[in-house]
Amino acid sequence: MIETKDITLTSFQWPAGYYNDGIEMGIGQSDKLDFGYLVSEVPASAAGTYTTNKFQAAPTKLTKNMINQDHQLQAMVVNSAIANSCTGEQGEDNALTEQQLLSEKLGIDAHLVGVASTGLIGAQLPMDKVIAGIKQLSPHHEDNVTKAVLTTDKHSKQACVQLEMSGKTVTITGFAKGSGMIHPKMATMLGFVTTDAAIDGKLLQATLSENVDTTFNQITVDGDTSTNDMVVVMANGMAGAPKLTSKEDADFSSFQAGLHLVLQELAKQIAADGEGATKLVECNVNGAFSDLEGQEVAKAIVGSNLVKSAIFGQDPNWGRIISTVGMTNAHVDIAHVDIEINGIKMVQDSLALPFDEQMASDSMGANKVVIDVNLHVGSATGQAWGCDLTYNYVKINASYHT
Amino acid sequence: MIETKDITLTSFQWPAGYYNDGIEMGIGQSDKLDFGYLVSEVPASAAGTYTTNKFQAAPTKLTKNMINQDHQLQAMVVNSAIANSCTGEQGEDNALTEQQLLSEKLGIDAHLVGVASTGLIGAQLPMDKVIAGIKQLSPHHEDNVTKAVLTTDKHSKQACVQLEMSGKTVTITGFAKGSGMIHPKMATMLGFVTTDAAIDGKLLQATLSENVDTTFNQITVDGDTSTNDMVVVMANGMAGAPKLTSKEDADFSSFQAGLHLVLQELAKQIAADGEGATKLVECNVNGAFSDLEGQEVAKAIVGSNLVKSAIFGQDPNWGRIISTVGMTNAHVDIAHVDIEINGIKMVQDSLALPFDEQMASDSMGANKVVIDVNLHVGSATGQAWGCDLTYNYVKINASYHT
Repeated sequence: MIETKDITLTSFQWPAGYYNDGIEMGIGQSDKLDFGYLVSEVPASAAGTYTTNKFQAAPTKLTKNMINQDHQLQAMVVNSAIANSCTGEQGEDNALTEQQLLSEKLGIDAHLVGVASTGLIGAQLPMDKVIAGIKQLSPHHEDNVTKAVLTTDKHSKQACVQLEMSGKTVTITGFAKGSGMIHPKMATMLGFVTTDAAIDGKLLQATLSENVDTTFNQITVDGDTSTNDMVVVMANGMAGAPKLTSKEDADFSSFQAGLHLVLQELAKQIAADGEGATKLVECNVNGAFSDLEGQEVAKAIVGSNLVKSAIFGQDPNWGRIISTVGMTNAHVDIAHVDIEINGIKMVQDSLALPFDEQMASDSMGANKVVIDVNLHVGSATGQAWGCDLTYNYVKINASYHT
Repeated sequence: MIETKDITLTSFQWPAGYYNDGIEMGIGQSDKLDFGYLVSEVPASAAGTYTTNKFQAAPTKLTKNMINQDHQLQAMVVNSAIANSCTGEQGEDNALTEQQLLSEKLGIDAHLVGVASTGLIGAQLPMDKVIAGIKQLSPHHEDNVTKAVLTTDKHSKQACVQLEMSGKTVTITGFAKGSGMIHPKMATMLGFVTTDAAIDGKLLQATLSENVDTTFNQITVDGDTSTNDMVVVMANGMAGAPKLTSKEDADFSSFQAGLHLVLQELAKQIAADGEGATKLVECNVNGAFSDLEGQEVAKAIVGSNLVKSAIFGQDPNWGRIISTVGMTNAHVDIAHVDIEINGIKMVQDSLALPFDEQMASDSMGANKVVIDVNLHVGSATGQAWGCDLTYNYVKINASYHT
């Protein structure tokens, strides 16, 4: 568990040395920002995690290849509405063209430019609009790029922390798009984190990978893993703090705690704004055999359609929670499972406790529902976040394509 | 693949020597048959498969123990509305009481009586009603027991075949309850098969276990595995055909084909009548590396919330199908996947083909949608069945408990 108690979220602001833009190019059919860029004034250390779906989209592959060269990046070009996934050679050429055009516009090496797309699978990008879009982009310091990556998201996901490193104030700022096809596996949907901390690229990669496992990889909206998932972190060092090169460095633990908090906050915002969702569901598992098993159980509970439907209906139906525990591969003492919903004890030693059903149901009307499960087989823990399953999830996904 | 082309389904009838009853005892709150029994006039060879959920319900455990003693059974007492699951020692005592009372009523050994329950998890059976119910049961030859096991099912699931074994007509008749919490793993929801064939109990067990893997275990409604899943087969030999004792016996292959067809038909009926479903979804995977991988891919596709929502909306959104293929652990040639929906080719070599979207959408308005996927990595196949995800699934499950 990363200790984040001394670090708190602050209002949105960019770290030193970043600018961005988000514009409406009409790539999709709705009136929204759908194209943009994110740029650091100087090359930044960079790290990423990427979807494990075998059909990795062209922009995801390209960005992964760029970052893995020497863990450096200076700019990202992004679009929503079309995922540029399952688009063959033409799709790869189109991603390369985006990279090439933005690097020419910025006067930087092409390998310092990453590409991210999200939206419909199987369609080609309208390159005339993309080329016109790259020409139109201009440096701003508002948050339009955080809106340009959204699809069915109701609002943008942002998280910002500030911390002291060797007397300098360092800012870590992240944003993300989520909504549907959200069930990251060793990777995630589109997430972007910028910081003005200085950190070695490989150390940044190791730190990101570790912290994604307990944040982005612990959320689920619908159990479907997208072809375009990606989290990218850029660290440009412009805060002036000494460069982190080892986990033993004095400031590393506070940097990691800050990064963890930003990733966790974005993950929770994505879960809360899952397609059609009316509330965030948080599951805390205690007494697990291992942290991995605690995480597995927590994620299974927030991922159960039956649990999610019950939460939508404010139905304190704990039978579906314990049944989900029993479906997992985790060690369970089947005679000693405890369950609480919103702090109301419902199950002790795997048996029903009397409780006020009306009060429990009323408490589930809030915009956050917390499920606590104790497995009583060890001392490890796990957390996961999801959302309720609603009529609107079905409505949105019955008519996304046309 | 079991060859079933020479054996066809016939209209419902019981095999020789079985009677049943289904009555309304008011165990739940709705006006429906909720209690019943199924009895063979003589002890029958018996086999079962059971849920892999760690919280196995008391009646499921009891029936498994009875059948595993010597693979014999003569009667089952069944109820719906309350699952008698997560009910501790009192739940186990209640299941034993049901077994004891029915064995006394029938004048047979207690170990020849099985118990099956389905419904809400965590509540105790109202034993006054159960005891009164056992007294009221009387022998009938209609199909009321097939209705007494239903919960949110819209209609009963029945399948019947007749075949010749050494000059005798043998009948195999099955029924089931399905609807929600349907994602069997090495086991299934409540399914009952009766036959007047004669077959050794252990051979029957082996045959059932093999055939459940490609039928009941290949359906999913919502990815949730219940605590009460169970399929039980009883074979009383009253057709007068010679007893099967080995897979080498002349009549074994046709008996197996008949059993397979009954199991497959019940599985498809359960999928089609999934909670809130408006249509059956069948997925056929060809070109798989192994049958197991073909089954994995087929089941993943019919289990994806995004695919299920698109089918409800008649949206031929193949991107969600190929994305689901890429999420599985199966061998995939990512450049050579083909996809058809209702016979309309949409994807060849992993790339979009032009097709008439309106015609495709219209074809998805039927009560059965067929998805064909070719992985082009081998010659194995897999099939799975599911249903669409609808507003009504959410509605039903947002208010099951209260």
